[in-house]
Amino acid sequence: MNNQATMQRFSLNQITTEQWGLAEAIEGSVRQEVAWMSVWRHKLHEYGLKEAKRHLSDAGLSLSSLCRGGMFSAGTKEERVRRIEDNKRAIVEAAELGTDVLVLVCGPGATNDLNEARSHVEEGIEAIVPYAKDHGLKLGIEPLHPMYAADRSVINTLEQANDLAEKIGKDHVGVVVDAFHVWWDPYLEKQIQRATGNILGFHVSDWKVPIVDMFKGRSLMGDGVIELKKMRKRVEAAGYKGPIEVEIMNQLLWDMNGNEALAQVIDRYHSYV
Amino acid sequence: MNNQATMQRFSLNQITTEQWGLAEAIEGSVRQEVAWMSVWRHKLHEYGLKEAKRHLSDAGLSLSSLCRGGMFSAGTKEERVRRIEDNKRAIVEAAELGTDVLVLVCGPGATNDLNEARSHVEEGIEAIVPYAKDHGLKLGIEPLHPMYAADRSVINTLEQANDLAEKIGKDHVGVVVDAFHVWWDPYLEKQIQRATGNILGFHVSDWKVPIVDMFKGRSLMGDGVIELKKMRKRVEAAGYKGPIEVEIMNQLLWDMNGNEALAQVIDRYHSYV
Repeated sequence: MNNQATMQRFSLNQITTEQWGLAEAIEGSVRQEVAWMSVWRHKLHEYGLKEAKRHLSDAGLSLSSLCRGGMFSAGTKEERVRRIEDNKRAIVEAAELGTDVLVLVCGPGATNDLNEARSHVEEGIEAIVPYAKDHGLKLGIEPLHPMYAADRSVINTLEQANDLAEKIGKDHVGVVVDAFHVWWDPYLEKQIQRATGNILGFHVSDWKVPIVDMFKGRSLMGDGVIELKKMRKRVEAAGYKGPIEVEIMNQLLWDMNGNEALAQVIDRYHSYV
Repeated sequence: MNNQATMQRFSLNQITTEQWGLAEAIEGSVRQEVAWMSVWRHKLHEYGLKEAKRHLSDAGLSLSSLCRGGMFSAGTKEERVRRIEDNKRAIVEAAELGTDVLVLVCGPGATNDLNEARSHVEEGIEAIVPYAKDHGLKLGIEPLHPMYAADRSVINTLEQANDLAEKIGKDHVGVVVDAFHVWWDPYLEKQIQRATGNILGFHVSDWKVPIVDMFKGRSLMGDGVIELKKMRKRVEAAGYKGPIEVEIMNQLLWDMNGNEALAQVIDRYHSYV
């Protein structure tokens, strides 16, 4: 295992350069020799699926994942069906773009009954598994930090994601390890080991005190407390050697020139991941 | 099990009426027929231990706990020893005031090595157990929400608190269940059951979206998503029938007249706990 992550594994999660549209992000990535990207659906829809596919292909960029499916829980059966349909569209888009992972944010949060919301998530994933299978795609359950349990995700630990992946079936469902969401977990090492062979993605950013914004509170690697190299080595020991997505929601980064933001992100990646 | 918590179990955690000094809080509690209080050490020191003891006794108030010991982890051996000494002073104060529980906030956070910080906490608790025993006191490990792992507590789930209490010894170490910190936990029910007979306190407040401040982000019961009645019944089923502390850090509440704030808190307690 290397003490430094290679540029070959660097993936730009598009939210990190929110100031860019998809075309700009593709061109900016090429300029700085980025090999992988993770595309967000709202940016994809702005640009158009066919245009995006052609542009990514011409640029020689590979997709580490499509962000995101999920958001299964809702108060009515009709709304839950509608959301499952939207996940099917996401699967089609992911397959069309040539990525093999659809990241699932398993929310939204618990507005009323937490157990019920969690049941909706399980039912939603089960409903789309056959569809993902038909499209040659894996579903990556990404547990979100417990501070999002009320409004963004009711899957909040890697243990819970592992439980769900094992229950629904690891042939088509895996887990995504995002450092920001899981770093605090006292049982993280054990749960990463348990996920061996079933980790579909690894995301990095940092946790800096104070967290000034619940959504845009992430920091550049090196600015916070997360022991990223240690976590990367654990994830590698569990068999994951794929792209490492840098996913940072941070207003200061978004206010910068996109090229400068990306250069800084790559620099921090080399030093701290 | 009752569908409503009784006033006999209501305890005013003093931080809820931060606008009051201890003397005011005692008098305010008496006016509204509060039977229990939890006292914070900085307020106690302002007032003086002997004065406080006499005033509480004259008012007929019982102490549900003293807040707080803990804060064991530190970069140097000298600093850790200093903190253990401070915990011993807290034990003396708690015993003097006649409460049998010292709440431990097991921080501060992980500034460098998270596992090391957690080791410091374990060593710290082990160091003060004999002292607590001599003073007839139990130590209550209160897991704090994972969003405080970097700056306030490295014990972040009830499972972790249970592990620690069982390892160090349940004769003198138990757990404190604070709804705000643990409500999101997918394994909460199991861990409350596991803590049967070893729960030393139950704290209530609410989680309202958005959380506007990491420390002062708690809301009045009923304003957020936590299913408090369900949690109370689980804690009762695990044998805890003691005082229920209302512990709310909230600037709006602190900006109110103390009597009005307490009246509102009691009203919400009756409706939502």
